[in-house]
Amino acid sequence: MANEKKIIECVPNFSEGRDLDKIEKIVNPFRGKDNVKLLDYSRDEDHNRVVVTVVGEPEAVKNAVIEAMGIAVELIDLRKHEGQHPRMGAIDVVPFIPIKNVTMEEAIALAKEVAKEASEKYNLPIYLYEKAASTPARENLANVRKGEFEGMEEKFKNPEWKPDFGPDIVHESAGVTAVGARMPLVAFNVNLDTPNLQITDKIAKNVRFIGGGLRFCKAMGVELKERGITQVSMNMTDYSKTALYRAFEMVKMEAKRYGVNVVGSEVIGLVPMQALVDSAVYYMGIEDFSMDQILENRLME
Amino acid sequence: MANEKKIIECVPNFSEGRDLDKIEKIVNPFRGKDNVKLLDYSRDEDHNRVVVTVVGEPEAVKNAVIEAMGIAVELIDLRKHEGQHPRMGAIDVVPFIPIKNVTMEEAIALAKEVAKEASEKYNLPIYLYEKAASTPARENLANVRKGEFEGMEEKFKNPEWKPDFGPDIVHESAGVTAVGARMPLVAFNVNLDTPNLQITDKIAKNVRFIGGGLRFCKAMGVELKERGITQVSMNMTDYSKTALYRAFEMVKMEAKRYGVNVVGSEVIGLVPMQALVDSAVYYMGIEDFSMDQILENRLME
Repeated sequence: MANEKKIIECVPNFSEGRDLDKIEKIVNPFRGKDNVKLLDYSRDEDHNRVVVTVVGEPEAVKNAVIEAMGIAVELIDLRKHEGQHPRMGAIDVVPFIPIKNVTMEEAIALAKEVAKEASEKYNLPIYLYEKAASTPARENLANVRKGEFEGMEEKFKNPEWKPDFGPDIVHESAGVTAVGARMPLVAFNVNLDTPNLQITDKIAKNVRFIGGGLRFCKAMGVELKERGITQVSMNMTDYSKTALYRAFEMVKMEAKRYGVNVVGSEVIGLVPMQALVDSAVYYMGIEDFSMDQILENRLME
Repeated sequence: MANEKKIIECVPNFSEGRDLDKIEKIVNPFRGKDNVKLLDYSRDEDHNRVVVTVVGEPEAVKNAVIEAMGIAVELIDLRKHEGQHPRMGAIDVVPFIPIKNVTMEEAIALAKEVAKEASEKYNLPIYLYEKAASTPARENLANVRKGEFEGMEEKFKNPEWKPDFGPDIVHESAGVTAVGARMPLVAFNVNLDTPNLQITDKIAKNVRFIGGGLRFCKAMGVELKERGITQVSMNMTDYSKTALYRAFEMVKMEAKRYGVNVVGSEVIGLVPMQALVDSAVYYMGIEDFSMDQILENRLME
C-alpha cells in the first residue's frame, strides 16, 4: 500500500566557498531535473567549501552528482586552495544517505557505482568510506583524509592506502575524493544549567562512543555564553540504533554526579520523523506502534 | 516553500452495515476521482452502519460527499433500519477534519457548504454540530442525535431544535443528518498494572473533561482480561490543545494514589505526526522546535 518511491539523499562537499560563479556552475546540475531536488547549498568562505544537500530518486541523483563532479574537476584547482576545513579533493566527500524505501545496502551500491563511473570519467582516485568502506581503517573519514591534498602523494605510496577506484596517482588539480554511504546525521544538543565547560566536557566524553559511551554518538562540550550555560553538543550518527532519548537520558544521568541539571535540548537542522517518534514511543511506553499509524504516512501513499 | 496543497478528511457515517451491494454503491463516489482518496470504509453488522474515511482536496471531497449522500438518501430507508448504534439519518453524521494547510475555519465553512447544498438537493433537514455548531447545545453530537430517527418529528416541534439547513420536516426515509467539523481524534489508551476496573474507572473519571480533568479528553476504564490488567481508554478530541503526554502523565499521577503503575500505552489507528512530535519535544525539552525540521516534511515540498 505504501508509496514505494525510493528517495536517497546526497550531501557532496566541494572545495570552493568563495567564487560564487563557480559555485553556481557546480550546483547547476541539481536544478531543473526530474526526480532530483536541491534542498540546500551553503558555502563557507573561511572553510572555502560548499555543502550541497540534494534528494531524489537514486538513479537521477547519481547522474546529477556525477555531472556536478565533472564540473568541479574542471573548475577547482586544489593547488591554489586554502581554507580552514581539512580537504583532499575538489570534490572532497560524497556521502549517500538512505531516506525512504532505500536500504543501506542500496546506498552502498549506489556509492560504488558513482565512485566507479566518476573515477573512470575524470581519471580521479576515489576512496570508499563509512558504511561503503572496503577496510575498517577507511570507515572513518578523518583517517581517509589524513594528510589532506598535499599529503596524498605520500599516502598513495603505502599499499594499504591504494584508492578503491581510479588511478593510483593523485589527480593533479582535483586531488582525491571520498565517496560513501551513511545514516542521516541528527545534530542534537542537550543544555545544562552550569557555565562550567570542564564539567560539560567530561559529560560529553562519557556519553560519546570513543569515551566508552553510546555507539552512534559523537559529543563535545560547548559554551552558550549569552545564556551563561553550556551544552553537550552531539552528532547522532545512527538514530535508528542510538536513539535520541537514550543520549538525552545518559547526559542527564552523567550530569547528576556534578549536581548539574538538564534545562532543555535542541535539534539543529533536519531530523527524520522516526527519530522523534521513537522517543515519544519510549517515554509513553506505546506498545506495538507502527509508522503506518502516522496519518501523514498514510496520506503520502 | 512548503507544499501548499490543502488536505481535508471526511468521515461520513451511513446507516447501512449489512447490504454489501448498497454499501458499495454509497462508497463508489469516493473512488477513481482526482484529488480524492478513499482511505478506509468499515461496516459493522451489529451497528448496521458503515464508517467511511476519505481525504483529499476540499472542493473535490465536498463534491464526492454530496454525491454519496444522494445515493444514501435513495438506498437507505430509516423506517426499516435497526442496529445497536444510535442514528437519526440515512447519512447520520458527516464530520470534516482539517489535516494539512486547512484551518478549522475552512473546515467549518466547508461543512456549511455541504449542509446547504445537500439539504437543498435532497430536501434533507441538517444540523450543524461540533465546531460548526450554531448553538452551544448543538456542539455535542449526542445531544443533537438524542431521540434518534424515531424521535425527530417530536424534536422538530421544539423551536430550539429547528434544523440549521433544509426543511423543518424530517425526511420520510432518510431522517436527519448532522454535518460538522472537528479535530482528528486520537485513540490513546494507558495500561495499568491492576486488574481492578473500579480503580481504573475512578482514574478515568478524574482525567476526563466531564470529571474535572483535561479539556479535550474523553475516558473510561476498560478491562484487558487476557493480560489480567486494565486500561484508561481515552479519546483525545483535540491533541493540539490537550497533548498526549499530558494525559499520559495525568493518568500516572492519579494512579499513584492507588499504588497502581502505568505499564505502557497504545495508540489505536491513525495519529497525526504532530501529536507524537509534541510529546517527544516535551519529554526532551527540545527548544524552538519547528515541524519544518522534520525531514519528511521537507521532502513533501
